[in-house]
Amino acid sequence: MTMEFMTGRALRPTTKVLPEHARSHNRSLVLQTLYRAGERSRADVARETGLTRVTVSDLVAELMAEGLIIELGQREGSRPGKPATLLDLNRGAYQIVGLDLSAFEIFRGALLDLDGGVIARAEVPLAGSTGADATAKVVALAEGLIAQATAPILGVGVGSPGVVDLAGVVLAAPNLGWRDEPLQATLASRLALPVLVANDANAAVLAEHSFGGADSDMMLVKVGHGVGAGLLLGGSLLRGSRFAAGELGHVVVGTHGGADCVCGKKGCLETWLATPRLDAAISAARASGNSTDPILREAGRHLGIALAPVVGALDLAEVVLSGPAELLDGPLMEATIETFAARTMAEFHSGLIVRMTTLGEDIVVRGAAAMVLSGQLGVS
Amino acid sequence: MTMEFMTGRALRPTTKVLPEHARSHNRSLVLQTLYRAGERSRADVARETGLTRVTVSDLVAELMAEGLIIELGQREGSRPGKPATLLDLNRGAYQIVGLDLSAFEIFRGALLDLDGGVIARAEVPLAGSTGADATAKVVALAEGLIAQATAPILGVGVGSPGVVDLAGVVLAAPNLGWRDEPLQATLASRLALPVLVANDANAAVLAEHSFGGADSDMMLVKVGHGVGAGLLLGGSLLRGSRFAAGELGHVVVGTHGGADCVCGKKGCLETWLATPRLDAAISAARASGNSTDPILREAGRHLGIALAPVVGALDLAEVVLSGPAELLDGPLMEATIETFAARTMAEFHSGLIVRMTTLGEDIVVRGAAAMVLSGQLGVS
Repeated sequence: MTMEFMTGRALRPTTKVLPEHARSHNRSLVLQTLYRAGERSRADVARETGLTRVTVSDLVAELMAEGLIIELGQREGSRPGKPATLLDLNRGAYQIVGLDLSAFEIFRGALLDLDGGVIARAEVPLAGSTGADATAKVVALAEGLIAQATAPILGVGVGSPGVVDLAGVVLAAPNLGWRDEPLQATLASRLALPVLVANDANAAVLAEHSFGGADSDMMLVKVGHGVGAGLLLGGSLLRGSRFAAGELGHVVVGTHGGADCVCGKKGCLETWLATPRLDAAISAARASGNSTDPILREAGRHLGIALAPVVGALDLAEVVLSGPAELLDGPLMEATIETFAARTMAEFHSGLIVRMTTLGEDIVVRGAAAMVLSGQLGVS
Repeated sequence: MTMEFMTGRALRPTTKVLPEHARSHNRSLVLQTLYRAGERSRADVARETGLTRVTVSDLVAELMAEGLIIELGQREGSRPGKPATLLDLNRGAYQIVGLDLSAFEIFRGALLDLDGGVIARAEVPLAGSTGADATAKVVALAEGLIAQATAPILGVGVGSPGVVDLAGVVLAAPNLGWRDEPLQATLASRLALPVLVANDANAAVLAEHSFGGADSDMMLVKVGHGVGAGLLLGGSLLRGSRFAAGELGHVVVGTHGGADCVCGKKGCLETWLATPRLDAAISAARASGNSTDPILREAGRHLGIALAPVVGALDLAEVVLSGPAELLDGPLMEATIETFAARTMAEFHSGLIVRMTTLGEDIVVRGAAAMVLSGQLGVS
C-alpha cells in the first residue's frame, strides 16, 4: 500500500503527520524550487513540484507577505492576456552569519548572502582562550559580523570542533576546554537570533552538498591540526549513536605499529596525517635535500588503509578531502586512490571519486550558512 | 520554522506531501501502535499517537472493514455507560512467506505469522542449480509454503545473496549465476502476490531491528560461506551508492599480508573469517591435538581490525554477529571486542555492545517477513 515504506529510509512511523506539517513541507518545497531553479512562474512551480496551482498561489501569497518571495515582472514573450509573472526567492531579504571555530588558534567568521556567497569576513585570534573566555570570543565575533549586515540576519550557524549534540551543546572539545558547553543556547540568548551549532566536519559536508556538488553518499575528510570526517548517506547527515560520527582521528591504521599518539595509542590516523606532523616531516626532508613525495605518499597510503573498510561498508560514491591543498592535492591523494583500489572490490568501487573540495578555506563558514538555510527555510 | 529540517535526516524536500500521504502515514501509525502495544482502546490509540479521536475512529473503521483490526470486547472495569472497546491488530488475518537464499547449497523458507513467528518450514537443496534453474527452485519453494498457509498471504519476502537494487533485481550473485536477475518481478508475476527481495544481510539487520531488540545505529555481520554486513543508521537501512553497502568480505585487513583470496587479493576479511576456512583450520588443529582458541582469536582479531574504522566513522552503538555460534560465540568474539577497544577511542566507543544475534538461523526468513510487514502495512 505505501510505497514510502518499501523504498524509504524510515522503518517505523513514529510521528503523526498533520495538515500543518504537509503545509510546512510544501512551503519549503516552493522555496526550494525557487532557490535552486531561480526565475519561475507560479505555473512553473506547480508543474515542477506537483502541487496544484491553487496551493502554489496560496503559498506564494503567504511567502510574499513575509518578504521571502518577490515578483520579478512578466516573462518575455508572454501571450497578451495570459501574462506569466516570474517569481524568485528574495535573495536580498536576509543575510547569514557563519562561524568556523575549527582552525588552529583562530576563530573565523563570515557574513554570507542566501546563495552562500561571502559578503564580509572577520577573525579573532584565540590567544590561548579556553572555556568561558573562548565562548566570549565567539559572541564577539558574531556581534562584529552582525553589525556589518545590510539586511536582517536569518540566523547564525557555527561549526565547532569536538562532539556536538542535536541541541548544539558541545559535549567535548578538549582544545577549547569545553565540556557540555551549551554554545547554541548561549549564542541564541546573547544574540537574540536563531542559532545552529554543529561539528565542523558536519558543517563542511553540508557545504559540499549544498554548494560543492557532492554526491548523496559521500565522506568529507577534514585534515588540519586534527583529522575528522563528515558523512552524508542517502542524502542525510549521519550523526552517530553518541553524536561522534566521523571521529576517525584516533583509529589505529594498519598492523605495523606507528608513532606514539597524544591519545596513548600508536599509529592513529592523526599520527600519519595531522598537518603539524606532516609539516615537520616535510621541513626535515627539505632541509636534508630529500624529496617530500615519499612522506606525502605514506600519509595518503595510511588514509587509504584506514578508510577502505568504510568505503566498502558504506558503498560510498565519493570521498572529498578538505585541508591544505599543498599537502593533500598531489602525491598524498594519488596514494589514497591507489590504496582504495588495492584494498576494496573493483566490481563495486571502481567508480569511486576521490577529490579535493572546491570550497577551499570557506568550507566550514559556508556549511554553517547551509545549516541556517536548511533550518530556517528548509532549502539547501 | 520547521523543526524537522533542523533535526531531521532529509536535507532537501523533494517530494510533495499530499493529504492522502498524511492519511496513509497516520493509518500506519495506528497499525504500528496496535502491532507493538497490543490491546488498546480507540482513546488509548489517540493518546499514544497524538491523533484526534475522530481521526482514529475513522481510520479504525476503515481498517476493520479491511479485516486488519479486530475488536476484542470491552476492557474489564470499564465504567457503565462509557465502555472502552479494546482493539488489536488482527494477527490471524494474514500469514507471510519468508525465503533465505543465502545458505550454502540450500534454499530455506518459512511460513510466518504477523508477529514473525515461524509456523512451518521448507527447504530445497540447490544441487548445483544456477541461473533460471535456481530461480525455478525459488518459485517452487514459495509455492510449497503458500500451499501450507491457513490464512491469506500478506506477501513474500526474500533475502538473496549478492547486490540487490530497490526494485528487487539481483544485480550480481555469482554463486547462483545471477546477473541483473529480476527476481522480485518474476516471483510477483508467478505467485500473483506482493514480493520484496533484498540482500540477505539487509534482511537480517531488519530482523534484528524488528524482533531482536537492536539499537538504531548498528551493524549486523553475517558470517557463513562468505562474509557480509547490514547497516542500520539512525533507524534506517543503508543501501549504498550502488546498493552494495555492507559488502565487506573482500576488504583487505591489516598490513601484514594474508592468505590468497578467490578475488585475487591477499588477506581479505573472508580469508580470515569465512566458515570453510575456519572449519578447515579448526579440523587441522584438532587433528594435531592443538587448541582451536588461537585460530578463533586470530579470526576475531582480524574482524576487529577491519571493523574498527567503521565503528569509529559511524559511531555505532552495537555490532551483532550472525552465523555458527560454535565458531563466533567465544574466543572469536572476545578477540573482536578487545581489538575494538585497542584501536578506537574509549571516550566514544566504550559503550559499544558486541553480541551474538538471538534469532539464530531464522534471522533471514524473519527479516524477509519484516520487509513484508514494513512494505505492506508500514509496521515493524
